Amino acid sequence: MTHMVYLTRRERFNAAHKLWVAEWDEPTNLRTFGGCANPNWHGHNYELFITVRGTPDPVTGFCMDLKILSDLVEEHVINQVDHRNLNLDVPFMKGRQTTAENIVIAFWEQLEGPVSDHGCTLHALKLYETENNIVEYFGGS
Amino acid sequence: MTHMVYLTRRERFNAAHKLWVAEWDEPTNLRTFGGCANPNWHGHNYELFITVRGTPDPVTGFCMDLKILSDLVEEHVINQVDHRNLNLDVPFMKGRQTTAENIVIAFWEQLEGPVSDHGCTLHALKLYETENNIVEYFGGS
Amino acid sequence: MTHMVYLTRRERFNAAHKLWVAEWDEPTNLRTFGGCANPNWHGHNYELFITVRGTPDPVTGFCMDLKILSDLVEEHVINQVDHRNLNLDVPFMKGRQTTAENIVIAFWEQLEGPVSDHGCTLHALKLYETENNIVEYFGGS
Amino acid sequence: MTHMVYLTRRERFNAAHKLWVAEWDEPTNLRTFGGCANPNWHGHNYELFITVRGTPDPVTGFCMDLKILSDLVEEHVINQVDHRNLNLDVPFMKGRQTTAENIVIAFWEQLEGPVSDHGCTLHALKLYETENNIVEYFGGS
Amino acid sequence: MTHMVYLTRRERFNAAHKLWVAEWDEPTNLRTFGGCANPNWHGHNYELFITVRGTPDPVTGFCMDLKILSDLVEEHVINQVDHRNLNLDVPFMKGRQTTAENIVIAFWEQLEGPVSDHGCTLHALKLYETENNIVEYFGGS
Amino acid sequence: MTHMVYLTRRERFNAAHKLWVAEWDEPTNLRTFGGCANPNWHGHNYELFITVRGTPDPVTGFCMDLKILSDLVEEHVINQVDHRNLNLDVPFMKGRQTTAENIVIAFWEQLEGPVSDHGCTLHALKLYETENNIVEYFGGS
Repeated sequence: MTHMVYLTRRERFNAAHKLWVAEWDEPTNLRTFGGCANPNWHGHNYELFITVRGTPDPVTGFCMDLKILSDLVEEHVINQVDHRNLNLDVPFMKGRQTTAENIVIAFWEQLEGPVSDHGCTLHALKLYETENNIVEYFGGS
Repeated sequence: MTHMVYLTRRERFNAAHKLWVAEWDEPTNLRTFGGCANPNWHGHNYELFITVRGTPDPVTGFCMDLKILSDLVEEHVINQVDHRNLNLDVPFMKGRQTTAENIVIAFWEQLEGPVSDHGCTLHALKLYETENNIVEYFGGS
Repeated sequence: MTHMVYLTRRERFNAAHKLWVAEWDEPTNLRTFGGCANPNWHGHNYELFITVRGTPDPVTGFCMDLKILSDLVEEHVINQVDHRNLNLDVPFMKGRQTTAENIVIAFWEQLEGPVSDHGCTLHALKLYETENNIVEYFGGS
Repeated sequence: MTHMVYLTRRERFNAAHKLWVAEWDEPTNLRTFGGCANPNWHGHNYELFITVRGTPDPVTGFCMDLKILSDLVEEHVINQVDHRNLNLDVPFMKGRQTTAENIVIAFWEQLEGPVSDHGCTLHALKLYETENNIVEYFGGS
Repeated sequence: MTHMVYLTRRERFNAAHKLWVAEWDEPTNLRTFGGCANPNWHGHNYELFITVRGTPDPVTGFCMDLKILSDLVEEHVINQVDHRNLNLDVPFMKGRQTTAENIVIAFWEQLEGPVSDHGCTLHALKLYETENNIVEYFGGS
Repeated sequence: MTHMVYLTRRERFNAAHKLWVAEWDEPTNLRTFGGCANPNWHGHNYELFITVRGTPDPVTGFCMDLKILSDLVEEHVINQVDHRNLNLDVPFMKGRQTTAENIVIAFWEQLEGPVSDHGCTLHALKLYETENNIVEYFGGS
């Protein structure tokens, strides 16, 4: 019998951003995005749940050492976005609106390969922008 | 590649209810439902997580504006149940036991159409009756 | 040296209530209390933090056995209010508006004596009516 | 139309454990498991979410009485592990590394039958070892 | 007997800021404030607990209507800071470092008068910058 | 005017312990401490809130750099207790019952001096043993 287990690590980062379409004028941006289009930025304490799946090693009992998963996420995501401006400071967000939807898609691209290199499969990314606003992504198809 | 993203909004409401089968006598109700059958009602701070799925708009980066989703849920659900008695005051609960199971099924009927009208698909409703008692529903089949 | 330690136990209860002044007509009640005056009641998951103070016993290291504190609170408060209607079912709330302010004052009267009988002093009661609305009481003076 | 509802109960337990491979020497264990291999044990407040699925009874509105589910979990899991040492005191963990991955697999074996006996299907077990480290299991295949 | 009750309302806001001393060069700012000195800003989901004290009205049972308290805080604080840049967009923060310490002192100045005008006394402001970093202020002396 | 601000840092540690009076026989220990006297230990995810008080520096706006406070707590407390057995592995707990009451008193002795050396005063230690059991200590007198 195969025991597929889903392992989740929580990480956090604090960042500034704004929602803004460069091709639109300011009134259109404000009408569409409300306060999220404030030209001087606003920010969030983002909370990210990274889920990988795999089968536990018969000796260690680990799908993946959570310390390794945490280090991967720190290297490929957190170090790029923590205490940064998501619109200005993050190369992999360039040319993308910094909605929570687009952030998890971009994070997926950063993490899918490194997770596979350690014998598990990236299963889901769940991002809390606030306690009320949450997105989840399971990869493209 | 299609990027299906799952977007969740949290909403809350405070309501009174009781569990009671009209065809049963009081001892049978109390034996079956315990304190939940208290004739003078009890109540909860319900916490509702509404998940819709869709693909982000290439310009705005939104699957659905969360402000619109919040307004839909407020109009079709929260305004009907907040600070109400679920057994007496809510037309769409009439004739139904007000268990958490039946509440999410009824909420689904209220929300499935309005969410579709805005270009997303209702994916899941998760309802916390207490921090220990939770139901989730993904639609009928 | 005296080591005063403050010991807190969390308990929870689910109850129905409404805010209503019997001497007022319905429009005045609704104008004053809004949805909280819904004639058919509403309800809450109340969360109560009971804090007692005392010095740890040199042998057991306990100010007070938390099991004993929990039992006292269950007997004198939780069993009276859980799955009840605070306006109709609770003798010690009779004649009192069931605001969070009045609830903690009434609970204090129930708990002050029993806590003293077990060698500690009741220090504070903190009651969450919702995650946003909280009252705290340290006794009268 | 069939209404499959997913019902979740949260339970908690406090236990000691360590991660240790008997065939390895101490330096290898410490290098592999870090502080989790401390010979004198460490411990956790484990938080367990048990999810069952089923269709609500047309009369009671219950998939399964949550009181019954809670009792089953207490009898078959919590009473075996709460205030215990997972490596030494729990018969069904003997011969298994006490990683979170292996704990949920073992709990599944304990709970699958009893849940079926009450007309629902065990759907998922989610275990929080800490607020940052979480595993989820949906049964073997 | 006087019954002093402490009433708390939770409010939230999302804002951008940075820590930066204009008289210092960039290396000194970065050495002192670390990532908080990122020139392009970062941000937070701030959580604010506003506590007022007073005695419950003998008729309504209210120290202060929490709806009024919430409106006061929205008018005098939240509307000024939500979805804003605390360094650039908030008149009452001009000339002040936007540390959590200085933010609660500034908020106190905004709220002390309006709370007094409604018959209660501002007692405490508690601000969560993150789940790990919290400040509390009880007014100057 | 003096602006006293209270600054709190949250830290966490996972440890094993048991409650046991060496001079008592096993039945007396079990009768007094229940499951907490399990000879093979149990454990907790302890959550510690360290509060210091001071006035913000006019230039930096800091009472105390929270990074420094976090480092102090890590050096003097967390590194001694995390992933340890509180009864066996922690020199400053030797000869003391490992109740939450005694733990915060012992932590106070470890932290009072180092906090003073950095220009603030240790104000309070709050320790969550579980979500329901909490102690707070403000120093001896």
